[in-house]
Amino acid sequence: MSDGETRRGDGGMGTGAGARRRAGDTAPPAPAVHGSRIDQYADQYAARARGMVASEIRALFAVAARPEIVSLAGGSPYVAALPLDLVGEMAGRLIASQGRDALQYCTAQGDDELRERICEVMALEGVHAHPDDVVVTVGSQQALDLITRIFVDPGDVVLAEAPSYVGALGAFAAYQAEVVHVAMDDEGLNPEALAATIAGLSKAGRRIKFLYTVPSFHNPAGVTLSAARRPRVLEICRRAGVLLIEDNPYGLLGFDGEPLRPLRAETAEGVVYLGSFSKTFAAGVRVGWAAAPPAIRDKLILAAESAVLCHPSFSQLAVREYLATQPWREQIKAFRELYRERRDAALGALTALMPAGCHWTHPAGGFFVWLRLPPGIDAKAMLPRAVASRVAYVPGTGFYADGSGREYARLCYSLPEPHQIAEGIRRLAGVVENELSLRDTFAPVMRGDQVNG
Amino acid sequence: MSDGETRRGDGGMGTGAGARRRAGDTAPPAPAVHGSRIDQYADQYAARARGMVASEIRALFAVAARPEIVSLAGGSPYVAALPLDLVGEMAGRLIASQGRDALQYCTAQGDDELRERICEVMALEGVHAHPDDVVVTVGSQQALDLITRIFVDPGDVVLAEAPSYVGALGAFAAYQAEVVHVAMDDEGLNPEALAATIAGLSKAGRRIKFLYTVPSFHNPAGVTLSAARRPRVLEICRRAGVLLIEDNPYGLLGFDGEPLRPLRAETAEGVVYLGSFSKTFAAGVRVGWAAAPPAIRDKLILAAESAVLCHPSFSQLAVREYLATQPWREQIKAFRELYRERRDAALGALTALMPAGCHWTHPAGGFFVWLRLPPGIDAKAMLPRAVASRVAYVPGTGFYADGSGREYARLCYSLPEPHQIAEGIRRLAGVVENELSLRDTFAPVMRGDQVNG
Repeated sequence: MSDGETRRGDGGMGTGAGARRRAGDTAPPAPAVHGSRIDQYADQYAARARGMVASEIRALFAVAARPEIVSLAGGSPYVAALPLDLVGEMAGRLIASQGRDALQYCTAQGDDELRERICEVMALEGVHAHPDDVVVTVGSQQALDLITRIFVDPGDVVLAEAPSYVGALGAFAAYQAEVVHVAMDDEGLNPEALAATIAGLSKAGRRIKFLYTVPSFHNPAGVTLSAARRPRVLEICRRAGVLLIEDNPYGLLGFDGEPLRPLRAETAEGVVYLGSFSKTFAAGVRVGWAAAPPAIRDKLILAAESAVLCHPSFSQLAVREYLATQPWREQIKAFRELYRERRDAALGALTALMPAGCHWTHPAGGFFVWLRLPPGIDAKAMLPRAVASRVAYVPGTGFYADGSGREYARLCYSLPEPHQIAEGIRRLAGVVENELSLRDTFAPVMRGDQVNG
Repeated sequence: MSDGETRRGDGGMGTGAGARRRAGDTAPPAPAVHGSRIDQYADQYAARARGMVASEIRALFAVAARPEIVSLAGGSPYVAALPLDLVGEMAGRLIASQGRDALQYCTAQGDDELRERICEVMALEGVHAHPDDVVVTVGSQQALDLITRIFVDPGDVVLAEAPSYVGALGAFAAYQAEVVHVAMDDEGLNPEALAATIAGLSKAGRRIKFLYTVPSFHNPAGVTLSAARRPRVLEICRRAGVLLIEDNPYGLLGFDGEPLRPLRAETAEGVVYLGSFSKTFAAGVRVGWAAAPPAIRDKLILAAESAVLCHPSFSQLAVREYLATQPWREQIKAFRELYRERRDAALGALTALMPAGCHWTHPAGGFFVWLRLPPGIDAKAMLPRAVASRVAYVPGTGFYADGSGREYARLCYSLPEPHQIAEGIRRLAGVVENELSLRDTFAPVMRGDQVNG
């Protein structure tokens, strides 16, 4: 798929969001304007707050939620597939019989029995951890926030695939990390690029705090780190002393063949593993976790305590009860089949309908297809026209810290029904075709303008 | 867990994996020791992580939870007073009928209808806000974390009462704020001390980011800012341009007479108001909120998104449903009566049993009595002996950023039954009496030792 590595050559430190944020540290920015109001606090904010900008996904939510739009944006699981009556009965019994715990504060590390169950879930993928190693977090997102909080000083380097998960980039930006992207392709993260990037940064005296990676069923790229590359990535990080943050929310949602073992299944040293029930049970409980080496775990617990005191017991115990009393393994199988069907609908429609010059990944699991548009088509500029044609996606730029990715779109097939996916892609293909004919009609003129103007 | 291949003292920085992980840190801190392990990541953490230390309350939880101990520590609400059957039925119906929302992601600002209900709750105390002003947070703790995140650069000053809420001090420390305490007395925060502190800091060129205050039924001090002082505190902050963070988790739990209006009831300008359902409904849902001026609200939403993506819908909708379908005003009245009875039990036992030289506050609401021990008695040193006598409290030192407060203990009366409270205070009085007789027996000798060298 992508050539999309980090374009650090195009001006180096002087470009990209990271550079803009650093520049803001010394000179106060212009006051932000909200409607007709000037922000009277503009010169009061912390340096880190100046880098807080609305994610492209968030701005899309309101629009994409309109019923006439087929949303391939989002990234939401299809929770309607859960047996809601049974889950409701379970929750009711839980409150009635264990309300004193479910409605009370918990420890910052999380409920003991839930952490035991989490270890059973990880064991399904070959990850063996002790409940003591686990910290329950408000989704994986909080784990990312807390890891960045304990490791990253402003200007420290975080390595991430190109592209990378938008929520992770948001957490890294909030702590003023400089994200350096590492190239990936259809086999996932490129080990040679990783080694070369680490070597270059080390030579430049930069502090690399960790590599953030989604090896299986990548968000947004839809690719999986190949079996051959996994030990190489581990070895490169081990040798360079670079901590590895493995984010694996989709690992149990593989469609084709035997899923690959997580990196954490090979070694507990130097790896922090992030898991989540958002995709295998329900996003609305916001139960994720980190399994970390003891020293890091201790810091994560302290950081969690100062961030939220503790995770909601109400959610934690609901998940604990779900895992204890409901056929959750079968439910995951059902989700897997459901998402496989939607993946097939997406790939079938793309193959049948997308104009020449488009390329896309073939996810073996997870929620996402990463679409590359033909040369000259800008996914971000195209989005309003796509929405007018009643289809939404996320433009690629949100998944790069350096503003690149305009030629990409993330298509999420998890939430719409298969026939809606096909219809959405039909609409999208029409939009792309329109863009292409505009391009072919006007591009020579535009180029002429530039030359003459 | 592998055992200590890298024991401390066997060669210092030259041994162990940590030495490999050099990353250009100029002054690596001493390796942290966890049991027999050296923390191999010790020189990798962010500067802010070095200030993360376990709170004194957290270390107490395990001990205070033992059934033979009367815990006056904690700070937990008495959730067993809730009609758990009815709340369970409500939760069950919610999932069965609205599971698609309750189990799905939400926006980072929080559920629309919940924010409307929150405005109704605030209106009970005379605070008028628009749902747009409200951001739902994972307890008030997350609001504190996010406010500090957006405002505080390392070294910035945060003003707080002396003593102040331990969780707030933890959040401020996590962002390397310097907390400057302002004196308080039985009428709450002292306006003259506030004005003088602000003037002194301004003269010294320090950046004051905000005043953090709990005006009503203070945690831990159990006092309330008097009606006469409220406008003065507001005016001092307004003139000095100091943002005011008003934390009001106990405001609806006043026992005596008409409660005072929150500061935010007088003005929305320059005040961020924090509320919580932890004490009026259930701590385990972790639903708190901030009502903030628009520019700050926008930053809070972005910060919340990067911290947790969104608050658990499961919890939010449970609170929404509780407020929509259950007699929550009557439940608050019931809580108020219940805690009043416990407050009376605590004050009665203190008056009857505490030896001379002890002083304590008389809370008109909330959960806490602040006990001052006689001269020479150290609440922190006494704690193990108190626990041996089967009573627990929180020593005062946790509530000061500067290590003072050894002569204080926080007594929380919210969780034990009245007869347990009386028994706990009887035990505590015995412990204090023992300390006093030890002091009177040995103090002259100790002083003699010091003089004689």
